[in-house]
Amino acid sequence: MLNNEVNFCLRCGAPLSLKKSFGAVRPTCPDCGWVYFADPKVAVAAIIEQDQQVLLARRANDPYRGLWTLPAGFVDAGEDPRDTVVRECREETGLEVSVTDLVDVIAGQEHPRGAHILIVFRVNVLSGELRAGDDADQLGFFRLQDLPPLAFKSTRQILGLP
Amino acid sequence: MLNNEVNFCLRCGAPLSLKKSFGAVRPTCPDCGWVYFADPKVAVAAIIEQDQQVLLARRANDPYRGLWTLPAGFVDAGEDPRDTVVRECREETGLEVSVTDLVDVIAGQEHPRGAHILIVFRVNVLSGELRAGDDADQLGFFRLQDLPPLAFKSTRQILGLP
Repeated sequence: MLNNEVNFCLRCGAPLSLKKSFGAVRPTCPDCGWVYFADPKVAVAAIIEQDQQVLLARRANDPYRGLWTLPAGFVDAGEDPRDTVVRECREETGLEVSVTDLVDVIAGQEHPRGAHILIVFRVNVLSGELRAGDDADQLGFFRLQDLPPLAFKSTRQILGLP
Repeated sequence: MLNNEVNFCLRCGAPLSLKKSFGAVRPTCPDCGWVYFADPKVAVAAIIEQDQQVLLARRANDPYRGLWTLPAGFVDAGEDPRDTVVRECREETGLEVSVTDLVDVIAGQEHPRGAHILIVFRVNVLSGELRAGDDADQLGFFRLQDLPPLAFKSTRQILGLP
């Protein structure tokens, strides 16, 4: 199914079988009726601008360790994506921000553990001092003509670059 | 964890235990190392307008059977939400549409099987004839002052109603 990752019932542990359910063939538990839905992984990214420069974070972890990205992170089930982006900015940049605009929703997983859907917000800095943390080990404001090596294609798309 | 639904490893079937992983305590497999991430369920909704009326579909299935909603449906992992909204309009309304605008991203699950995140697009009708299908058993264009009973609170929010 998905890289042979979907074999046993998450609820009761029985082996799953494929069955038509809710409009598609899905791994389904013959014992307890649990159905596996492949939900997309959702991430958010923040655009923080200052003096016509954009804030980027250098990735401290693989994949793409050492390459640069917008502050970003995964949305947990039940979390408001606007709360996620505020939390991720706090964790990765030390800045308290508020969301000003929904910029875009971008589809397409760039690596096997990556998000399927990226929700991009423009945010406004309220307070705090720049300090790299969590998944980021360095931060910097960059002019669009002078960007460091980027981890993701979506970053260029978000910034309106070819 | 989530309604006692997360007990066994999806990959190998072993009982899961809670372990700190990727910044949070998550159900983790002691045998094969598989980690359960609670990904959000994502849905899309379409705004189709004509003569200052909005197209609504009557739900053919529970929950909220018989109540009205924007054409909408779940995004599968790997599906572009813009493709989902085109597909759902085709299935539920018989119309071929193209996406014109991203309108909003709304958070909040309205029932236990509902989406956590709703991505709303404005769409333009290209062709087709109105014909209810799939999850919808009736369709209609309605003025905002004269809406039928709605299934979801988010519909009022999307339409800018109190």
